Amino acid sequence: MPEFLFGHWAVIEAMRSGRRDMHALMIHERAEKRGSVGDAMALADELHVPVQRVQRRILDDLANNGNHQGLVLRVSPFPYCDVEDILQTAARRGEKPFILLLDLLKDPQNVGALIRVSDAVGVHGIVMQERRSVAVTPAVVNASSGAVEHINVAQVTNLVSAMKELKGQDVWLVGLDVGPNIPPLDKTDLNMSLGLVMGSEGEGLRRLVRDNCDLLLTLPMRGEVGSLNVATAGAIALYSAWGARGWTGWVHA
Amino acid sequence: MPEFLFGHWAVIEAMRSGRRDMHALMIHERAEKRGSVGDAMALADELHVPVQRVQRRILDDLANNGNHQGLVLRVSPFPYCDVEDILQTAARRGEKPFILLLDLLKDPQNVGALIRVSDAVGVHGIVMQERRSVAVTPAVVNASSGAVEHINVAQVTNLVSAMKELKGQDVWLVGLDVGPNIPPLDKTDLNMSLGLVMGSEGEGLRRLVRDNCDLLLTLPMRGEVGSLNVATAGAIALYSAWGARGWTGWVHA
Repeated sequence: MPEFLFGHWAVIEAMRSGRRDMHALMIHERAEKRGSVGDAMALADELHVPVQRVQRRILDDLANNGNHQGLVLRVSPFPYCDVEDILQTAARRGEKPFILLLDLLKDPQNVGALIRVSDAVGVHGIVMQERRSVAVTPAVVNASSGAVEHINVAQVTNLVSAMKELKGQDVWLVGLDVGPNIPPLDKTDLNMSLGLVMGSEGEGLRRLVRDNCDLLLTLPMRGEVGSLNVATAGAIALYSAWGARGWTGWVHA
Repeated sequence: MPEFLFGHWAVIEAMRSGRRDMHALMIHERAEKRGSVGDAMALADELHVPVQRVQRRILDDLANNGNHQGLVLRVSPFPYCDVEDILQTAARRGEKPFILLLDLLKDPQNVGALIRVSDAVGVHGIVMQERRSVAVTPAVVNASSGAVEHINVAQVTNLVSAMKELKGQDVWLVGLDVGPNIPPLDKTDLNMSLGLVMGSEGEGLRRLVRDNCDLLLTLPMRGEVGSLNVATAGAIALYSAWGARGWTGWVHA
């Protein structure tokens, strides 16, 4: 089944990455070859991807009424990898594994935002469960600003089994949780082979997932509202972990 | 001019905070008194706020087609404060000032998200410019999950003048910026009287705002996409600053 990626960065990054088969770039029938449409057309030309001009309502339909910005790319399905590929990426870069595990997240915006930050901090891959969780849909690609097109994502049958597999490879699993007696994020040196585990919106970590973490940490919180969106909490935890690694791989502008 | 707050948390937190005059709670004509509508009705009852039942399309109109979840609250305008009030809040809590300054941010989602995080880390107030910037609109209240109803927001005529006023009160202004020779976020101890200055989406800090910062810091970044949303970057910087303060005011769950 083909997929229809939509929006400027989703389309551009999918073409730049070249990991999927690209069937056609669809643009609005009267779009001029300039701005972001022009960039996408030039890239399509270079990659020999056919360009089709279609009516706006076709773009709206293909993008499921998402914000397509006049650009839709018809591609093959997202190329998921295995947990082993993630570990190999770490080894190839000569870095201790740095992995994000998502426990049944539901909201494409949150998952996309977490993937975008994962790319920014050099995470080697993301692990998510196939059932009862959002997959890498075009909405996720869009919400990640296309970052997911460059990163390893393993979609596993059972998250707990994947956790055990990682533990067998000496990866420490750190769950971000809320509750009494859980130390704050900065009380542990996260400069280790790390799998950061995030719970779902509202529900948090499932009990079996929590029980399989080597360590739980919490994000301190004060104030009147006293809650953060999971994507915000994850971004803070990912940066905290990357900072502990001394910003490995950062090329200062 | 009355304002129409919409969405569960916006309405609940505005009632809990009680900083605005509340004219009426509007709910769907056939809504039952349970769930989040029930919570809001009970609170309205307690506070003697009249409840009006209206048609769905009236709620849609009043919420400007935002996600109102069946709840709209008619209130007086947002009660802005002065920069001086922010400093007094810090003094009253016996804490070094911790202030967020926003330079011409445009997107209500970003501003709302930054305010929600500001509440979570105990920021004493937010300073934004009146012109060419988003104000505390109902969309911002919604995006902040109602957090803005509990926090000081000063809307100033000129951000640079407000920066000078803060410098006169020994507040250090730290701008988050991108560019060569800017040290990373963790290379400075942020445990000081701090005004964190965030630039706008796409544009970053204006030159005069940058020139009036005492210090610039940058958020390291690697990866293929190499950019973060301003709300995400701000959340990371705010947590970094609060961590440097030893999570002051955190009551461990």
